[in-house]
Amino acid sequence: MSADFDVVDLIRAKRDGRSLPLEAVDWLIDAYTHGWVADEQMSAYLMAVVWRGMSPAELDRWTAAMIASGERLDLTGVGRPTVDKHSTGGVGDKVSLVLVPLVAACGVAVPQLSGRGLGHTGGTLDKMESIPGWRADLPVERMRRQLAEVGAVICAAGAGLAPADRRLYALRDVTGTVESIPLIASSIMSKKIAEGTSALVLDVKVGSGAFMTSLDDARELARTMVGLGAAAGVRTEAVLTRMDHPLGRTAGNALEVTEAVDTLRGGGPKDLVEVTVALARVMIELAGARRADGAGGAPTARDPAEVRAARDPAEVLAAGDAYPVWRAMVAAQGGDPDAVLPRATHVETVPAPASGYLANLDARAVGIAAWRLGAGRARKEDAVSAAAGVRWRAGIGDRVTAGEPLLELHTDDPKTLGRALAALAGAVTVTPQPPPPTPLVLDHLPA
Amino acid sequence: MSADFDVVDLIRAKRDGRSLPLEAVDWLIDAYTHGWVADEQMSAYLMAVVWRGMSPAELDRWTAAMIASGERLDLTGVGRPTVDKHSTGGVGDKVSLVLVPLVAACGVAVPQLSGRGLGHTGGTLDKMESIPGWRADLPVERMRRQLAEVGAVICAAGAGLAPADRRLYALRDVTGTVESIPLIASSIMSKKIAEGTSALVLDVKVGSGAFMTSLDDARELARTMVGLGAAAGVRTEAVLTRMDHPLGRTAGNALEVTEAVDTLRGGGPKDLVEVTVALARVMIELAGARRADGAGGAPTARDPAEVRAARDPAEVLAAGDAYPVWRAMVAAQGGDPDAVLPRATHVETVPAPASGYLANLDARAVGIAAWRLGAGRARKEDAVSAAAGVRWRAGIGDRVTAGEPLLELHTDDPKTLGRALAALAGAVTVTPQPPPPTPLVLDHLPA
Repeated sequence: MSADFDVVDLIRAKRDGRSLPLEAVDWLIDAYTHGWVADEQMSAYLMAVVWRGMSPAELDRWTAAMIASGERLDLTGVGRPTVDKHSTGGVGDKVSLVLVPLVAACGVAVPQLSGRGLGHTGGTLDKMESIPGWRADLPVERMRRQLAEVGAVICAAGAGLAPADRRLYALRDVTGTVESIPLIASSIMSKKIAEGTSALVLDVKVGSGAFMTSLDDARELARTMVGLGAAAGVRTEAVLTRMDHPLGRTAGNALEVTEAVDTLRGGGPKDLVEVTVALARVMIELAGARRADGAGGAPTARDPAEVRAARDPAEVLAAGDAYPVWRAMVAAQGGDPDAVLPRATHVETVPAPASGYLANLDARAVGIAAWRLGAGRARKEDAVSAAAGVRWRAGIGDRVTAGEPLLELHTDDPKTLGRALAALAGAVTVTPQPPPPTPLVLDHLPA
Repeated sequence: MSADFDVVDLIRAKRDGRSLPLEAVDWLIDAYTHGWVADEQMSAYLMAVVWRGMSPAELDRWTAAMIASGERLDLTGVGRPTVDKHSTGGVGDKVSLVLVPLVAACGVAVPQLSGRGLGHTGGTLDKMESIPGWRADLPVERMRRQLAEVGAVICAAGAGLAPADRRLYALRDVTGTVESIPLIASSIMSKKIAEGTSALVLDVKVGSGAFMTSLDDARELARTMVGLGAAAGVRTEAVLTRMDHPLGRTAGNALEVTEAVDTLRGGGPKDLVEVTVALARVMIELAGARRADGAGGAPTARDPAEVRAARDPAEVLAAGDAYPVWRAMVAAQGGDPDAVLPRATHVETVPAPASGYLANLDARAVGIAAWRLGAGRARKEDAVSAAAGVRWRAGIGDRVTAGEPLLELHTDDPKTLGRALAALAGAVTVTPQPPPPTPLVLDHLPA
């Protein structure tokens, strides 16, 4: 560290709306990682960032400093183009489970380093862990080999990737400083860039069940992340998708795995297929594109013509041709693809309140209900239930009949049913006429 | 504690500009004092307060909760009306040293619980401690007796007064959250209300050498503190005084005591006399005024006519009649009023840059120079030098001659001279014509 700074001066500068010198950004992340800057100083700084934001140059540097706080994986030995996807989190969002094997089946390797869920949106690792025997933790060497052999990996991000982000995220969680576009963007992108993927597609969710409830905020977050990816030499695009209603027909760990397997075998709900295929197309396209600057340690892309000549992912999915990749991916990490998944000891049904068309099923309410049934955790130390969750027997626009079961609440602990039902009050709207169809994919950046 | 709150919810509420329920304010201060709320949570909350402010009701409650975190002294046994003064801090501000004995000489008891200096403004206790033998720490019982017998006490505020403020102040100091009118006002007022005075006059300094550099900010701070005093049943008024130039002719501990003694003996610089007399008049007036609501544990005021019939403080001061009170006050706390004060081993002079009239002597620059010479401390653990400081041989508007000594730099450590001189670069302005006279007392609240 050549420069030395006074952390109180830096906090005051940010508080007063001044930009930090870029060397000060490096110093701050480094000093916090080493414990020279105390938690109470960093949390005051973070609140000032929530207030004042960061300049684009500051944010690039902040993200780079978080990456530099740990190791950056090198996936060049994999021998295929690599593309990852990150979702900002939604209810019933099992897209990764279908998408990762699908894109791999189309010839592009997907190294998905994932996290566990906190709050009302589920985590991909929690879902995968409902498969008996499946292990999230994978040494880097085994991950590389699996990527080369199977083309698909979903595993836990190691503690060595962006450790500064890990500490900062834990601090933000307890200090009311989560809700900030530069802080969210840098947290996501530092981990994704450190994992070594050469391209990245972001699924930015918008709506009542998502972190970003307005399209403008979602677009700003997407733009910010795309810019950070570009600055770090990772080809990055963002797709904005609607999250007013939960995705598919289930929210909960084993319930979602079952639904993902149905989809991989050529079935599955229409909305899940639509979002998955849209993202797969962007990922495959990105994998084929050569990097404009030609720099960096990214693996050489295959001949673009070869990638584009591959079958359309919609066709691959419908034919069930991604399912063997799923099986191989699960088995490579110790899971039994034929195992019977945990089932809840109690299932309570909720009838449709009227006859007509299902016009609304509030994503946030469903997410909170599934969480309360045991599918999610309130603190990161908590365990989750594999079997708990919510299933809805009709999708948006489907006909429903008054008094017939509409929702299923799955849990191993019947004491949770009361609070789960309370979360669902007013979550269902049935109308006499079918609701107008609304697109799921709202935008794509850069256009 | 009847209610229970989630601190992250409270931080988010403040961050988003919402007011807290008043029970939540009580809970927050209590939980922080007990360690249930961590420093990193409170510092994020404080930064959100710097950003969003506090509603008047929140601020009253916040201040009351800080007072309730410790003891509140009862001075009703003193047998005289009590009035204290608090200054927001200026350079060369030895007003308390003259004012406390002066007001006592006029028949009103002054219980001044004071602090040590931090940064470029000196602390009253640091100045008094340059008197050999004088002790700042006084048990409450001895303080009460001295108040009854001498009428004047300057001593350290005990750790039992507003301990929540003590912890919060230390936290604010290292997290860039000092500069907030509600936080400054509640910090000052919680201590002053807890000390048990029945009336209080605030000397709010405005100008380059003060914390508040604009008259608007100073007026807002004054109004806020006056409101907090009224809410707590302490008759409170504020006088706004100019602090563009340092007060008197000295800045530094023993140097200021010597100047205060000269003033108490009927001499002293005109500006110091003017500010001291103005504050003394307001204090004496306030002591005589009966409380409008008649409530609370304040001592019964003497008959207002009796107080008003007393001699004007200007006359008392000029006649040297406050000096015996000073001597008694110093002696009662172990000090020798006749002792020779420490003198610096090195005195460097700085000549006037031109002939003409002294039009400006920058208060902040003089304060920083005195601090660097050893008169102040950078951290609260540091010791201060009794002898170090700056003396200026001419006041604003006085004639000066090019090349003749204008400033004296006193220090025991000649290595400090370079940085002190650097602080003074550009601090002196000499003009061919005398500067227009400017009033020292700028405003008085409530009018």
